[in-house]
Amino acid sequence: MRIIFSILALSFFTAMHAQDKEVKAIKEQVRKFSNYLMTDQRAEVVKMYTSDAKIFPDGTDILEDDGLANYWNPENRSWKTTYHKVTPVEIKVIGDEAYDYGYYEGSSSNGDRSSDWKGKYVIIWRKVDGEWKIYLDIWNSIKAE
Amino acid sequence: MRIIFSILALSFFTAMHAQDKEVKAIKEQVRKFSNYLMTDQRAEVVKMYTSDAKIFPDGTDILEDDGLANYWNPENRSWKTTYHKVTPVEIKVIGDEAYDYGYYEGSSSNGDRSSDWKGKYVIIWRKVDGEWKIYLDIWNSIKAE
Repeated sequence: MRIIFSILALSFFTAMHAQDKEVKAIKEQVRKFSNYLMTDQRAEVVKMYTSDAKIFPDGTDILEDDGLANYWNPENRSWKTTYHKVTPVEIKVIGDEAYDYGYYEGSSSNGDRSSDWKGKYVIIWRKVDGEWKIYLDIWNSIKAE
Repeated sequence: MRIIFSILALSFFTAMHAQDKEVKAIKEQVRKFSNYLMTDQRAEVVKMYTSDAKIFPDGTDILEDDGLANYWNPENRSWKTTYHKVTPVEIKVIGDEAYDYGYYEGSSSNGDRSSDWKGKYVIIWRKVDGEWKIYLDIWNSIKAE
């Protein structure tokens, strides 16, 4: 009986540890995403998505493939992201997929003018070849106070 | 060998069937949601969410509890939803949770004026006591052409 309890307890804590490890890995991806934006490495931002990912920007259709790549890495663009921060509220890992929701905030500048914005998001993450990538990414704004 | 193959095949098809059954149950909830809106049964709309659900309307903070209930079922409201349709593109069930994305469209009227709108959404569903309920619900608009 004591052995069975020990095995159950060990399984439980091992599972907990695995979940913590994956959540930590996803949080690291979240930081990477913001860093790529702030250092204007837009091709790297695109690579953080799965090959079949979908994004849901406000006012557009659902974008994927070239639509997704052009959204994050357009040929002509004058605005740069000078600040970007994502604050996950909950990340729930279920096997090789995870859902994540929280807040984002940032600033953009075109040299002359700048703009501050904040919002909220839901992301579906998927583990591909050991790396967490974004499969679904939807967000909308929170009005400035 | 043939027995092992049969067992594996049977497990596979049983799992497929279970997934189909849950997807069908979620699609039924999707239809119910629209029907409750169109028949102005707003308290029933609120009951389609888990007790800890969060909604992400454009321009607001993340809403839960009374915030969620007041969003769907406000005391004073002059606009009614005359038409509402949700078209899921993908529903993926993972145990007692599921993610779902797709499109919505609808019309509102206050008697004098009416408004048509369409958009896209991501929902996280959770099975609670055998019933699929909405845990996370985020959407934003698609601009009218």
